[in-house]
Amino acid sequence: MSFPFTSEMFGTAAAMNIFSGRRTVHWMLVFEAALARAQAQSGVIPLEAAASIERVCGSDPIELGRLTADSMLSANAAAPLVKQLTEAVAVDDPEAAKFVHWGATSQDALDTALVLQLRESIALLRGDLDALVTTLARLTAQHQSTPMAGRTLLQQALPMTFGFKVAGWLDAAMRHQDRLLALEKEISVLQFGGATGTLASLGDRAQPVMLALARALDLRLPDIPWHTQRDRLAAVATTCGLLVGTLGKIAGDIALSSQTEVGELAEPAEPGKGGSSTLPHKRNLVGCNYVAAVAMRVPNLVATMLSAMAHEHERAAGAWHAEWEVLPEILRLTAGGLVHLKRMTERLDVNVLRMRENLGITRGQLMAECITIALGARIGRMRAYQLVNAACQRANASGASLRDAMRDDRELSALLDAAEMDRLLDPANYLGQSQVFALKVLERQRQRSGL
Amino acid sequence: MSFPFTSEMFGTAAAMNIFSGRRTVHWMLVFEAALARAQAQSGVIPLEAAASIERVCGSDPIELGRLTADSMLSANAAAPLVKQLTEAVAVDDPEAAKFVHWGATSQDALDTALVLQLRESIALLRGDLDALVTTLARLTAQHQSTPMAGRTLLQQALPMTFGFKVAGWLDAAMRHQDRLLALEKEISVLQFGGATGTLASLGDRAQPVMLALARALDLRLPDIPWHTQRDRLAAVATTCGLLVGTLGKIAGDIALSSQTEVGELAEPAEPGKGGSSTLPHKRNLVGCNYVAAVAMRVPNLVATMLSAMAHEHERAAGAWHAEWEVLPEILRLTAGGLVHLKRMTERLDVNVLRMRENLGITRGQLMAECITIALGARIGRMRAYQLVNAACQRANASGASLRDAMRDDRELSALLDAAEMDRLLDPANYLGQSQVFALKVLERQRQRSGL
Amino acid sequence: MSFPFTSEMFGTAAAMNIFSGRRTVHWMLVFEAALARAQAQSGVIPLEAAASIERVCGSDPIELGRLTADSMLSANAAAPLVKQLTEAVAVDDPEAAKFVHWGATSQDALDTALVLQLRESIALLRGDLDALVTTLARLTAQHQSTPMAGRTLLQQALPMTFGFKVAGWLDAAMRHQDRLLALEKEISVLQFGGATGTLASLGDRAQPVMLALARALDLRLPDIPWHTQRDRLAAVATTCGLLVGTLGKIAGDIALSSQTEVGELAEPAEPGKGGSSTLPHKRNLVGCNYVAAVAMRVPNLVATMLSAMAHEHERAAGAWHAEWEVLPEILRLTAGGLVHLKRMTERLDVNVLRMRENLGITRGQLMAECITIALGARIGRMRAYQLVNAACQRANASGASLRDAMRDDRELSALLDAAEMDRLLDPANYLGQSQVFALKVLERQRQRSGL
Amino acid sequence: MSFPFTSEMFGTAAAMNIFSGRRTVHWMLVFEAALARAQAQSGVIPLEAAASIERVCGSDPIELGRLTADSMLSANAAAPLVKQLTEAVAVDDPEAAKFVHWGATSQDALDTALVLQLRESIALLRGDLDALVTTLARLTAQHQSTPMAGRTLLQQALPMTFGFKVAGWLDAAMRHQDRLLALEKEISVLQFGGATGTLASLGDRAQPVMLALARALDLRLPDIPWHTQRDRLAAVATTCGLLVGTLGKIAGDIALSSQTEVGELAEPAEPGKGGSSTLPHKRNLVGCNYVAAVAMRVPNLVATMLSAMAHEHERAAGAWHAEWEVLPEILRLTAGGLVHLKRMTERLDVNVLRMRENLGITRGQLMAECITIALGARIGRMRAYQLVNAACQRANASGASLRDAMRDDRELSALLDAAEMDRLLDPANYLGQSQVFALKVLERQRQRSGL
Repeated sequence: MSFPFTSEMFGTAAAMNIFSGRRTVHWMLVFEAALARAQAQSGVIPLEAAASIERVCGSDPIELGRLTADSMLSANAAAPLVKQLTEAVAVDDPEAAKFVHWGATSQDALDTALVLQLRESIALLRGDLDALVTTLARLTAQHQSTPMAGRTLLQQALPMTFGFKVAGWLDAAMRHQDRLLALEKEISVLQFGGATGTLASLGDRAQPVMLALARALDLRLPDIPWHTQRDRLAAVATTCGLLVGTLGKIAGDIALSSQTEVGELAEPAEPGKGGSSTLPHKRNLVGCNYVAAVAMRVPNLVATMLSAMAHEHERAAGAWHAEWEVLPEILRLTAGGLVHLKRMTERLDVNVLRMRENLGITRGQLMAECITIALGARIGRMRAYQLVNAACQRANASGASLRDAMRDDRELSALLDAAEMDRLLDPANYLGQSQVFALKVLERQRQRSGL
Repeated sequence: MSFPFTSEMFGTAAAMNIFSGRRTVHWMLVFEAALARAQAQSGVIPLEAAASIERVCGSDPIELGRLTADSMLSANAAAPLVKQLTEAVAVDDPEAAKFVHWGATSQDALDTALVLQLRESIALLRGDLDALVTTLARLTAQHQSTPMAGRTLLQQALPMTFGFKVAGWLDAAMRHQDRLLALEKEISVLQFGGATGTLASLGDRAQPVMLALARALDLRLPDIPWHTQRDRLAAVATTCGLLVGTLGKIAGDIALSSQTEVGELAEPAEPGKGGSSTLPHKRNLVGCNYVAAVAMRVPNLVATMLSAMAHEHERAAGAWHAEWEVLPEILRLTAGGLVHLKRMTERLDVNVLRMRENLGITRGQLMAECITIALGARIGRMRAYQLVNAACQRANASGASLRDAMRDDRELSALLDAAEMDRLLDPANYLGQSQVFALKVLERQRQRSGL
Repeated sequence: MSFPFTSEMFGTAAAMNIFSGRRTVHWMLVFEAALARAQAQSGVIPLEAAASIERVCGSDPIELGRLTADSMLSANAAAPLVKQLTEAVAVDDPEAAKFVHWGATSQDALDTALVLQLRESIALLRGDLDALVTTLARLTAQHQSTPMAGRTLLQQALPMTFGFKVAGWLDAAMRHQDRLLALEKEISVLQFGGATGTLASLGDRAQPVMLALARALDLRLPDIPWHTQRDRLAAVATTCGLLVGTLGKIAGDIALSSQTEVGELAEPAEPGKGGSSTLPHKRNLVGCNYVAAVAMRVPNLVATMLSAMAHEHERAAGAWHAEWEVLPEILRLTAGGLVHLKRMTERLDVNVLRMRENLGITRGQLMAECITIALGARIGRMRAYQLVNAACQRANASGASLRDAMRDDRELSALLDAAEMDRLLDPANYLGQSQVFALKVLERQRQRSGL
Repeated sequence: MSFPFTSEMFGTAAAMNIFSGRRTVHWMLVFEAALARAQAQSGVIPLEAAASIERVCGSDPIELGRLTADSMLSANAAAPLVKQLTEAVAVDDPEAAKFVHWGATSQDALDTALVLQLRESIALLRGDLDALVTTLARLTAQHQSTPMAGRTLLQQALPMTFGFKVAGWLDAAMRHQDRLLALEKEISVLQFGGATGTLASLGDRAQPVMLALARALDLRLPDIPWHTQRDRLAAVATTCGLLVGTLGKIAGDIALSSQTEVGELAEPAEPGKGGSSTLPHKRNLVGCNYVAAVAMRVPNLVATMLSAMAHEHERAAGAWHAEWEVLPEILRLTAGGLVHLKRMTERLDVNVLRMRENLGITRGQLMAECITIALGARIGRMRAYQLVNAACQRANASGASLRDAMRDDRELSALLDAAEMDRLLDPANYLGQSQVFALKVLERQRQRSGL
């Protein structure tokens, strides 16, 4: 924990817990126990030794403080863990102690434990992303015909619906579901190779042990150990990076929509949240800040994972170590950003009235394209554009509405009666395919969740 | 081109050409022509107008210098391109000029052109990666039983084979083949939505036009426009980042193996390449430098693409612009790194003799594990370790070989006769699963390329 | 130039020109000429040889196309440049040709040329930054008492003045002036060491030659060559990174203030700039997009320069090469961002009326703190807060102004008469130290520019 | 703490402690106490209230668990800290409770506490860097004439001395001393501005309070609050980034020099450190791994700090929050890398014999330049080069030494007798300015430390 008490602000307890020292030790012991079992099954070590090792692995044999201190000197946590485990097994069965970690190298234990932690982490992300998708689908359906201003380059451009906007978010979120699913499969692969990856000390028993170990841990068997081929680990980072990019986009839209001068969206109010004692009108952003911060931080951590892929020869002197804090950090931040956004959208405060009001801020000019097109069909597009544009100029100069500026023009008044003007100036009549697109995205979401 | 004449050092002409101004204009015109055709087919614009627009699009109508200058002011290249195109069409058919770019927004043209360029770029990468895979497979097969030292943390650890080492590279390279294939499919999607993505100006003809346009360009139809959902574009960046990570790993191994003191690998010699006029023993790295540089640069460009995913509302004010140079840069560097590595490995200078010599640098201690295991079966692992370890200490102190140090020990001499000692000290007898793993990777490669 | 014609969008011709191939060759020839002269002065080479080398260096002897092609093979541009130069000198004076590049290594020429280019680049930046500072000072002075809403976490918080806001920008900009000045001095240092930096081939003439060379180029003499100590070069990158961070902050504020719903600032209008043919109300951001993009890109290029500092031994195999395009890119983008911001602020469209209107959006609640403090002096802060807060709640519920809500309260009405209420509700009366702070910053600016 | 127990591997307890929750609270309370005192001195709040606030601030009044939980909701730690502090003061003196945090905003407390923590952190770094400089100076002096091979592009190039190599490291390290000193001064500046930086609630007492507060905390008074001008904070990041770059360079050189095939340097041996139970010849890198990892990680964290400089308006919604964990992380990693390198160099194992042996690996060709130059003076450089080059070719072909190859040549044998050949082939006679440069750097170091 560091400066101002922040780990949980940007992460979640669940995501952090997976990579706690305690859980890391747990998964390393799961590896050591499974290794002993696999080797006993393959006749490499005695069955009794394996039984003893498994028993001790299950008995919480590691003293964490000592492990941390020893890890400093050995430059990784596996050697000192094996030392403590061996001591504990020796108490139980001195003969068995000889077979602890047999034929394995430190990185076998560390990488396989990491893979098992990543599998847990991705499952966690998938659960929260599923919930976010459900929420976004609900919002899309609910607001498929709620008109609002579409904004390009931070300027109001044309009307659209809020459901259309959310459908864009949903469309991307579903792609991330696919990516996480594929990633979960890709990453679930055993690491086992011994000192330089050749499993030399296991002789002709190497392949059977490897196979039995993979099965015991429910991991795929790789064609070859991958101690210095880190593309799969880096893909965890990049997949998180892509997901976080979308979280940042959505939170950014919400934050901009929450500005005092816009007021269309707000994070759900909660007692004690985001308030200000002296400024009663303020309803500060909270979750959006966290998600935005996460979206600024994760990309550069992804870059570290990518630039740390150049592991030297058969074990890296630094690039491997660079992964140790960075990959868990990426998963913590991704999980945190995802949960913040999930919660924020679940009870998002949508101000439909303000959306409608903001459509009127340009006093009709937002509809100029619509009017030009309607007129163009009758008097030619060029003439139509000239007339409407002139009316806009007059409106800008006088502060009048476009409606009034058009009324002042004889030709326009003759072409469009009051009723038609009203119809053409109503944003609700120029929403285009907002709803159709939203429904297409929703349809896909329904089909997928139906599977 | 900038400081010291480098664009082509780090890229390839082919990769750069795809994103030249000329080719970008080409693809934008392909979009405009297809749009006109699709709209004519759907009855939105007259057939004659579409014919004229298509004709002019095919006639190289854009003056690049003027386009560049105008792009500055409009903050993107589409508006001024449409302006020039419209003028050119007006010369051909004044009526048709009204229908240029009908219903589309600048980003429709720019994004779709980009997608078409990315499709070309990925095809290029795939071709070069296929060639690299073929080369690595050949090296793996050829050296599957060539002994060399495996090195962990930059120290010699145990013997293995050079084929095993290359098989690790190959294993990763094949995963990148899969990633590029999936990416090519993912990225091939139409962008078309008009000002805020609702296609409002096309009325009820919007969906038919969109469908016809996608078909004409052989692109997938998205469920919804994706102007500010950039995950697919960012995935191009991350996929390149992963690939480049592996290129950097391989080039790094080659560079380390080329050191004067190691001398096991060398980049292929070429007249005028990497030599030194006064230092005749030097054979400088060339390609490795480029690949290493690319591997240092691409990750941070990937970070930019990821952190630029937070596009505001319906069109971003900066994040979109941040992509423009960065994504082509990533593709240039990736293509360059890939081609440099491909060429370097095609005629890689493998010094089998030096590999064998280097196995002797520790004067036998590299084989201490092997001897301990062999003895352990007879006298117990603990006693075996004590004896061998003591022999190693003596060898270190005196500078003797492990063989001589063992000979000096009565117990060891009694246990192992000269022939057995020779056998146990021969690295070729302790290569473990080097060949088996290499053959598994090769088998996968053969099956895939057979498809 | 690449996808959509962008180099000049994000850079400036002046900044790019410094690093053109032609100018790079120029500075390398300046180095070679100065080297020959320094060696002649120190008696290392004949005076006639130096004269000939100098003469040829000044005669544009390098064929760029051939240089580029040869640079690929030799992995840097110096060796092939020396080759061409030597050939050209040989035509002039065969004897002199032997002394071209005498005792120097490629990196001596490349690094010193780079230093000379960096000196030019920094001078360019300093000029534009000075102009920006002048503009910001003018805006500060002009609007020192122009009231506007201060916004925290994107919510209106309290009134302040526009001059105060600009003074914050100015304060930072002046710190960057100091940084650039210090950088210019720090970077202006000679590189000269020969193959491994020992100048061995110059024997006891090494130090005099080095000194004469530094003097000729008006560069500082380093205590030791710095071929693989790149901190000074990386400091160019970080200094640009810091400057660009401030540019991004200012442009971000302008962009947010330009939103349709805010409308307080706008980039200066120009014919053909940022307009939209169908959406007459739109006044698109142009310069802000570029600056924002630059601010997203430069930080990651800085990261590359920092992570490329680990140059191996006496010349790096990749990390050096990574600098070649990245450092000029950083300078191009920094120059571009700076000039865009400079132009944008020079004729910034400040809508004082809209600033005043936006102060009314909360219908008085922006002034709640002010009223609470005034009342607190009379009835205690706690009671004051309760009364004002209750009035705010009523106003929120009914949509009334805070003034009306306070009027409805008997106690408040009794405490504050209409005139006092008006006074307390007028943002112009609660600007705090806005003007004082602005004047302090202005005073510093005046003193500095007076120097 | 996360995956495998790593925080202390990459950091130091001292560096981490500065940013612990407990210490952060400490410094925030120091701010609140000083604020109360300053306001009492300026007549803004009663002296008794200030005394009570100061008293409670010194009494460890904050419950950390509750603070962390509340910080989540309020999106920063200051508001809930002020709440707890106010409650605690109310127990002591209910009247005083009204004046806690008077006129200040959350960011005033958080930024000023941060500044005070940064000042501590930089002092820590300076101490360790001073120690490193002392060590490097000692190594330089000790090995100023120890010959070794200089290596460019990972190839042996020319002889030099180990002291010359270390002097290059020292030269850079001293520049970082200067940077840290300047940074310490630059960063020591008060943050105090209230809600939007105008100090409006303090009326005409604002400036006196601000001045008294700065004095009380021994911080400089800024001309204007800097809540959203983060260049000074980002400069902490970039200065660390530059320092870490040099640490990575040095550790990289040590790691490469420690390779089994090079063996010139080794990290100091320690019981339990870096050993391998089965591979007795191995002496694994430990500290180098950590430093290398730090050098891979910090640059991208610097990028985050730079890209997070675009704080919106008067308080950022995300960019500020992005700093909270990243800046302490940078300081932790920098401190850790520095201490690892300091320890490693203090007892660096320098194998002078191996350095000498490695000079012989090219069997004399390393000295070809030296011989060519010597001969050139007699028979012309061209002829000399031809003869020596031909000898090198013969040596390469036969495996002979350059000496023997030269002996086989009648012309060379006639020109150089055995004694001269020996002299020219002795690397110790071609060390150039190695010692002179080393002494220049040492002289600077001595002058500085004498100050």
